Amino acid sequence: MTLSIEDPHMAHTPGRAELQTRFSAFKARGLAIDMTRGKPCAAQVALSDPMLDMPGVGGHTTAEGFDARNYYGSALGLLEARTLFATMLGAPPEQVAIANNSSLALMHDMVVYALLHGVLDGSQPWRAGPVKFLCPVPGYDRHFAICEAYGIEMVPVPMTGSGPDMAVVEALVRDPQVRGMWCVPMYSNPTGETYSPDVVERLARMKTGAPDFRLFWDNAYAVHHLTDTEHTLPNILERCSLAGHANRPLVFGSMSKITFAGGGLGLFASSPSNIRWYARHAGVRSIGPDKLNQLRHVRLLRDHAGLRAHMTKHRAIIAPKFALVEASLQRRIGGRGVATWSRPDGGYFVSLQVQDGCAARVVALARELGIALVPAGRTYPLGLDPRDSNLRLAPTFPELADIEAAMEGICLSILLASTEGRGA
Amino acid sequence: MTLSIEDPHMAHTPGRAELQTRFSAFKARGLAIDMTRGKPCAAQVALSDPMLDMPGVGGHTTAEGFDARNYYGSALGLLEARTLFATMLGAPPEQVAIANNSSLALMHDMVVYALLHGVLDGSQPWRAGPVKFLCPVPGYDRHFAICEAYGIEMVPVPMTGSGPDMAVVEALVRDPQVRGMWCVPMYSNPTGETYSPDVVERLARMKTGAPDFRLFWDNAYAVHHLTDTEHTLPNILERCSLAGHANRPLVFGSMSKITFAGGGLGLFASSPSNIRWYARHAGVRSIGPDKLNQLRHVRLLRDHAGLRAHMTKHRAIIAPKFALVEASLQRRIGGRGVATWSRPDGGYFVSLQVQDGCAARVVALARELGIALVPAGRTYPLGLDPRDSNLRLAPTFPELADIEAAMEGICLSILLASTEGRGA
Repeated sequence: MTLSIEDPHMAHTPGRAELQTRFSAFKARGLAIDMTRGKPCAAQVALSDPMLDMPGVGGHTTAEGFDARNYYGSALGLLEARTLFATMLGAPPEQVAIANNSSLALMHDMVVYALLHGVLDGSQPWRAGPVKFLCPVPGYDRHFAICEAYGIEMVPVPMTGSGPDMAVVEALVRDPQVRGMWCVPMYSNPTGETYSPDVVERLARMKTGAPDFRLFWDNAYAVHHLTDTEHTLPNILERCSLAGHANRPLVFGSMSKITFAGGGLGLFASSPSNIRWYARHAGVRSIGPDKLNQLRHVRLLRDHAGLRAHMTKHRAIIAPKFALVEASLQRRIGGRGVATWSRPDGGYFVSLQVQDGCAARVVALARELGIALVPAGRTYPLGLDPRDSNLRLAPTFPELADIEAAMEGICLSILLASTEGRGA
Repeated sequence: MTLSIEDPHMAHTPGRAELQTRFSAFKARGLAIDMTRGKPCAAQVALSDPMLDMPGVGGHTTAEGFDARNYYGSALGLLEARTLFATMLGAPPEQVAIANNSSLALMHDMVVYALLHGVLDGSQPWRAGPVKFLCPVPGYDRHFAICEAYGIEMVPVPMTGSGPDMAVVEALVRDPQVRGMWCVPMYSNPTGETYSPDVVERLARMKTGAPDFRLFWDNAYAVHHLTDTEHTLPNILERCSLAGHANRPLVFGSMSKITFAGGGLGLFASSPSNIRWYARHAGVRSIGPDKLNQLRHVRLLRDHAGLRAHMTKHRAIIAPKFALVEASLQRRIGGRGVATWSRPDGGYFVSLQVQDGCAARVVALARELGIALVPAGRTYPLGLDPRDSNLRLAPTFPELADIEAAMEGICLSILLASTEGRGA
């Protein structure tokens, strides 16, 4: 299938009967394509195949001279791994901790430690009273799932295209029950937007009702550029420190979309005090993380330049997939008033806004066509999108031909849904 | 140094002045030997060196046909890993979950889930009221540290030589605030004893005040035999199930003293309902464990017979170290009324009972000699040994020559402490 603008199926605005005919014909193709999760494709994980026989027999000694096959003291990981990821996390190595897969587990554990022990600057464990988190929406479903599991009330905050609406945030954080906020500050999941310097500065400076308020700064896509327009972000640790809120940010990073998904490392950076706080609690949980997997990462990526070079290879594999999604959306439904969508410069998702009340219907129709989309609403707290209009597309895993077919089916589903009188 | 019974230093019972002379001479040797933790030696971890280049480039496909480099669905681990460890854990593969390093982390997380969510058979999260755990003593300090961190009151229970004193246990568990009990049922840490069939049966059958009481069954040394007298244990899952308490036992296992310490796997087995409970909560914490490390373990050990063969190699390395400790204790302080000690058939420790009030002094004296022992009391809740009499020796890590020297210094310290009028 070509990408010609002259696609005969789309040269006119089709009527409902024609759409239904096409829908039946598409259904008969019996496709099975998964566009649900931000999952790397086989070519992406293969970029890290050298790790499969690392560190190699005889290669178990760390730069510090320790035997990585055995126990030794630090709950914070190998110094060489902390050094490797320092630039990416924006912190000196001594303010970096390296944990096992996954960063989500790290965030979960921080929430648990906060609930049961409390955090620095606070007078008691969070569980002593009601706890609320600000949740920029649409956002990452697994962040919201942690809040839901632990009874943390989620307060949605609209995204603006350059981060969360700060007037709303600044008003809400005056509530002392608001103890945390989920942030994916660069190439946000799913909208792809990056927080502006002004947003970051206001997050660093804002007055919070809770003295122990924490930014859960999940910088999952810090080096995941898709174009030459590489987004940048002010250093949240520095900004908060200068604003007198050094312990406010908890910065997370992940190797799951850099090396092996589910076989990577969880990364954490924060103030010196917060690192000690983490080490104290993590040290009760475990003697320490798997050091051999840290060695594998150090030997594969070597330094920040090596990490960037590795990410360029990822870009070469997945940028064409995002381009295909964009071209397909533009050609099939562009200018028809049925949807708008993000054109991300990085990250893992395309966020699609369909007409109000149509998202769940589009997912159901696509399912009939053999195309799995993440359930509508999943990008909202408790799975409830009040306008039922956001869809998240994850184009990294399928092959190009499957993406092309999926986009045809998804656009068909959007057009059909929009004829059903569900739209605004 | 030979092991001759005719050691001239010990042929008579030395007086205090002679002991002090010897102590000064020993101190001048400037030794630095660590006998603190149950840490494998280099030769032991080297037994798993083939894992250092596993699974190898191209070797990432699981028996089920999944790509272990990427995400896929189960929070419970690879079926082939669950199958490998089923026999060791005494459960069918579907009742086994494989997690990242370490089993301690798994136990910690279960405590956290119980505190914040509650467990099956209970009506509310444990944190809703005071929680107590029974702690057989002497026991494992890291178990006690979890309780201490989360404000769980620890109730000591004396060990008898064949497990905890069940009359005491049966009386204490009638208290509905008693929700858990730490058990290292085979080659217990540190006493080396194995729970008798009668003890296991009574633990399975006993009436508990709390309907959601849990046995934290840390079978850390299930295959860690040191002699041909291989201890066995009734199957706690079966016994509890037959007694109508299927959800009572949470069975844990660890690879840290089988393959790589801190680079192994945490293992869990329980009732089908408890496995679902675990998967639900662990699934919020993480998308799933590191599957590549599971593959490494499957490829190295293959099956239960392979695991047993691997443990035979461990035994060949460490059994002589335990024999040296035993011979040295016997020759240097045997029959003098200053100490008794365990002669373990498995596990990682020798437990030493010195005269009441002497343990901390022995540790301090040994430290002067350059011998690091775990702080006295560490094997008791909150680090408080009421009789100040228990010492834990960990002979696996040092080389034989160092163990011989360390035992000389430790025995000297014991003899000297016993002359100081601290004894009973």
